[in-house]
Amino acid sequence: MQYKVIFQPSGRRGMATNDKTLLQVSRELGVDIESPCGGAGKCGKCKVKIEAGCLNLSPLTEQEKAMLTSEEQVDNFRLACCAKIQGDVMAFVPEQSSGGKQVILETAQERHFNLNPAIRKYYIEMEKPSLEDYRDDFMRLTDALTGRFSQLKDLQIDYSVLLTLPDSLRQSGWRVTATLWQDKEIVAVEPGRVENSYGMAVDIGTTTIAAYLCDLATGNVVQRDSLLNSQVRFGDDVISRISYCMMNDDGLACLHNLIINDLNTLVARMTHAAGLNYENIYEMVLVFNTAMHHITLNIDPQYMGRVPFASAIRSPLNIKARDLGIKIARSGNVHCLPVEAGFVGADNVSVLIAEEPYKRNSMMLVIDIGTNGEIDLGNAAGMMSTSCATGPALEGAQIKYGMRAAPGAIERVKINRYTYEPACQVIGGADGLGAQPKALVKGICGSGIIDAVAELFKAGIIHSDGRFNKELNSPRIRRGADGKMEYVLAWSAETVIGQDVTITQKDIRAVQLAKAALYAGAKILMQKKGVAKIDSVVLAGAFGSYINKESALVIGMFPDCALENVTAVGNAAGEGAKLALLDLSKRAAAREIAASIQFVETAAEEDFQKHFFEAMDFPHAKDPFPHIKYILTNFPGR
Amino acid sequence: MQYKVIFQPSGRRGMATNDKTLLQVSRELGVDIESPCGGAGKCGKCKVKIEAGCLNLSPLTEQEKAMLTSEEQVDNFRLACCAKIQGDVMAFVPEQSSGGKQVILETAQERHFNLNPAIRKYYIEMEKPSLEDYRDDFMRLTDALTGRFSQLKDLQIDYSVLLTLPDSLRQSGWRVTATLWQDKEIVAVEPGRVENSYGMAVDIGTTTIAAYLCDLATGNVVQRDSLLNSQVRFGDDVISRISYCMMNDDGLACLHNLIINDLNTLVARMTHAAGLNYENIYEMVLVFNTAMHHITLNIDPQYMGRVPFASAIRSPLNIKARDLGIKIARSGNVHCLPVEAGFVGADNVSVLIAEEPYKRNSMMLVIDIGTNGEIDLGNAAGMMSTSCATGPALEGAQIKYGMRAAPGAIERVKINRYTYEPACQVIGGADGLGAQPKALVKGICGSGIIDAVAELFKAGIIHSDGRFNKELNSPRIRRGADGKMEYVLAWSAETVIGQDVTITQKDIRAVQLAKAALYAGAKILMQKKGVAKIDSVVLAGAFGSYINKESALVIGMFPDCALENVTAVGNAAGEGAKLALLDLSKRAAAREIAASIQFVETAAEEDFQKHFFEAMDFPHAKDPFPHIKYILTNFPGR
Repeated sequence: MQYKVIFQPSGRRGMATNDKTLLQVSRELGVDIESPCGGAGKCGKCKVKIEAGCLNLSPLTEQEKAMLTSEEQVDNFRLACCAKIQGDVMAFVPEQSSGGKQVILETAQERHFNLNPAIRKYYIEMEKPSLEDYRDDFMRLTDALTGRFSQLKDLQIDYSVLLTLPDSLRQSGWRVTATLWQDKEIVAVEPGRVENSYGMAVDIGTTTIAAYLCDLATGNVVQRDSLLNSQVRFGDDVISRISYCMMNDDGLACLHNLIINDLNTLVARMTHAAGLNYENIYEMVLVFNTAMHHITLNIDPQYMGRVPFASAIRSPLNIKARDLGIKIARSGNVHCLPVEAGFVGADNVSVLIAEEPYKRNSMMLVIDIGTNGEIDLGNAAGMMSTSCATGPALEGAQIKYGMRAAPGAIERVKINRYTYEPACQVIGGADGLGAQPKALVKGICGSGIIDAVAELFKAGIIHSDGRFNKELNSPRIRRGADGKMEYVLAWSAETVIGQDVTITQKDIRAVQLAKAALYAGAKILMQKKGVAKIDSVVLAGAFGSYINKESALVIGMFPDCALENVTAVGNAAGEGAKLALLDLSKRAAAREIAASIQFVETAAEEDFQKHFFEAMDFPHAKDPFPHIKYILTNFPGR
Repeated sequence: MQYKVIFQPSGRRGMATNDKTLLQVSRELGVDIESPCGGAGKCGKCKVKIEAGCLNLSPLTEQEKAMLTSEEQVDNFRLACCAKIQGDVMAFVPEQSSGGKQVILETAQERHFNLNPAIRKYYIEMEKPSLEDYRDDFMRLTDALTGRFSQLKDLQIDYSVLLTLPDSLRQSGWRVTATLWQDKEIVAVEPGRVENSYGMAVDIGTTTIAAYLCDLATGNVVQRDSLLNSQVRFGDDVISRISYCMMNDDGLACLHNLIINDLNTLVARMTHAAGLNYENIYEMVLVFNTAMHHITLNIDPQYMGRVPFASAIRSPLNIKARDLGIKIARSGNVHCLPVEAGFVGADNVSVLIAEEPYKRNSMMLVIDIGTNGEIDLGNAAGMMSTSCATGPALEGAQIKYGMRAAPGAIERVKINRYTYEPACQVIGGADGLGAQPKALVKGICGSGIIDAVAELFKAGIIHSDGRFNKELNSPRIRRGADGKMEYVLAWSAETVIGQDVTITQKDIRAVQLAKAALYAGAKILMQKKGVAKIDSVVLAGAFGSYINKESALVIGMFPDCALENVTAVGNAAGEGAKLALLDLSKRAAAREIAASIQFVETAAEEDFQKHFFEAMDFPHAKDPFPHIKYILTNFPGR
């Protein structure tokens, strides 16, 4: 049986087979409904309001009864992942359940590198063939190249370039520009003198894909763009994606095709914007976590999703773009940075080649915050890394009003420690605290959550163990519908979702779990290395906004370090990808560090639990951070 | 306008657009009509009889009037390449105009080689991953391979093997057989111990594609097969094919797709016959002349078809079969032997590595007879080669009753020098002279033509200048319809074409031109090398039958040489391809000889014309070959 299904407010409609869930159908119709738990009925983010056809759905499940308030139940709310279609249905997707466009922050930080790309162009002129000089076109070309440029030898040609070589040489009067990859393989031959050549660096995050279109002749970034990873519809974290591949026969093919389409969309959009076309892109450098690595390459990720987390391949790879279905120049290569181990992927290697802790004498801690936290510790004498499951709280998921860093997300919070009134900065709102049009508020993103928890603690609204101080008198500090304490960041009138946006006791607990995992991971590395004190900390992550380093320190996300030696760098993985595109020596460095870094499996460490529980509390002293005193004195509205 | 067209006796029918020629439409409908001249109206081989709709065709052209007898004109014969469709038509394709299945002769000659294929299999067992040993699958595999087999190092893996690597390793309990190409690239990983591996060697001739399916573990040929090159519909020689590519926008694509389809047909048919499937074929070695080389690789051949005959690439190539659309194992490679120069292709290189003149001290002449003759002369001290346009006479084309070596072709001829009666051996007939069912006769193939001309000369029926001796009294020696002399090889009652099969004065002239070109080419090489006498001669060619070396010597196809040092070897190019498949050292030899052999462009040599005209005559002495006296005394029926 087939039934008619309509989603509002988009108005998308289509036919659905019996017993498919609303979530499944929404995916088929391209309607973006939040489902961080991957449709497992656990997160309660996929609430939709049934506007017609309530009785044409399967009965309320136990999960729905637990997740939906009795008011919501009366108002015909359902969880899209639980409600199965058994007749015609029209559903309304409320603002807070709807996926939005991700905002990606570009780092302003300038990094030094030598322009030394894999792709280089060489202009040459040749004698035309004669009965006396009957060399073939390929030899004529390579003789000219190796004769003119002494660093070139043993040149190969990609098969697809060969197809047009005779025409290219003759139509140009034997004056051409050859494009070489690694000074080894001829990947293009163009008539006349051509100097521009382009490449693309892409950081494929679980949530966001960030791309940089670079001019390889100058090293300049000519376009930046980002896209919500289309796989987000199938779950917010890598475990959901791996599960989807394992549970569905065409799961891997489906997710693989989505990511390839996303990459092709970015190529098309960015080359169009730059007045180029896809054939001008000769190389693409990819970085990703291990799950995205496998799925992008169409390799079954199931084994790296479970103990002992063995990945299929960690070595750096060069694959013809055409073999992956990626539409750049037909002879173009895709370079994948090497993977470290288990969940520590090429993205962490990319962060390392961007930050270069292995070139320093001082002891540096690098934390890349994501759904999985990756932690690196060390210096020129040696590096260690680990990975810890922080949960998605720091990215805004599994938080009651959490959301991705999209327009409407609160990204900065200050709370007046006398009036308990907050000042919020909202993405897409006016810049600066206090001046934003509050009506935009839709939820809270990662950096906002870290800020809010830190501010709640500093204002004394929560204790160092994370519990609310119930003795304070403010309408913002109250008991929620579930009887648990919460803090109101924005009143419903200030939002577009028609609800008060709050930070709940449960949200604070999730942040505590996440930061404790990061802290414990860092502690384990320090212990393994025999280091008592770290000299500097780098906070990386594609949050959409820099994380506030003071807030991170206040909540105890990492072991103590002088604040001036803490740097928040934004999307360092994307930066590393760009550097690897522009400088071959970075690829060598990546290969070296990926092979030499010592991976520590925290699950195998007895002390991890101890450190983890010790780190659950917020650092308990009324004012334990003399070095960040200036933040308090600068507090607005004090 | 669209018209209905039917071809008999096949009964194939279809719609044709206005003004298409019958030949064009026959190609579209897959009806095989002979067209050695490529539809230029020059060869007169594409005669068809119009059974209905005579008036629905364009009027007789001047070419048709010249090619068709007045009797044929009355009987509604047309040249399919000239007659344009302007209404519904039914045409009958007579036997002699219809293309037939080619017979390919396999050489019985055993050649010595070391079994040293590019494809090798290695069985290994690995420890499974653990939290302590979290190496990735690829590293685990390569560590096991390089640890166990010391000759292996720096292994790479083809991307498509990676896709299934995790499953292959785990499903087999970490016991697998890895298939390596050149001990360098992993092209397959199969569970358990697998010893068999297969490869295919293919000689892509202008007319015939000959293929060998070989067991790479034993070196045995497990299947042999051949196919008429589907491009034959577009002309019998390389010039017609090159012209077709130049004259039609999709000409190259069309011919390229035909050859790829032919190769895939052979793979499917041969693997099926051997109880295998296409995935068991890990490598394919291709040899071809330069035009077939370009067209198979989808490279525009126009420039190598005209002065100075520059080819796109002469180096040996390894191309992923998937990039060419050839359906063998997804990671399989196609190896193309190197090309020499101009029209001297990889097929001649293949003949050389099969015959190895470059390993001898004595002076050897190698003649590969085809539409283009390739001639090599030399020894270990150095080799020279040239190419000469012999025309297709020696392959049975441009001969009145010439045909390919298919069933019904006269392949051996003896003529009684007293009665002037012939004894013919017919392909598909009983073996042995005199015992064949003559009713099978359809025409004469190359080896039959050479035999017939030699026998006519030895019997005194033709003079040494090629003219008929008009004073002999036999019904077989007569004037034809054109008033010119001819000799009847088979009476119409003995044929399936309802006509006397004759050798005409014009046919003899064509053989004279062809053999004179070969002789002159050989003379030029001898002159260039300063050689007065050759020690041995090898006659190669994919005629469908061995050429009779005595006949070749009698007509003066090559400079004088002791008959016992003349060998007819059949399809040496196919043999060389097989050797290159089975023994990597043969590829090295091919690369070396292709680079070192000195190419002589006969067109540039002043003496060529002189030698050519001198060689037009048959060697003029009544019995000038004391060393072949035994042939005459052994003559049957004497």
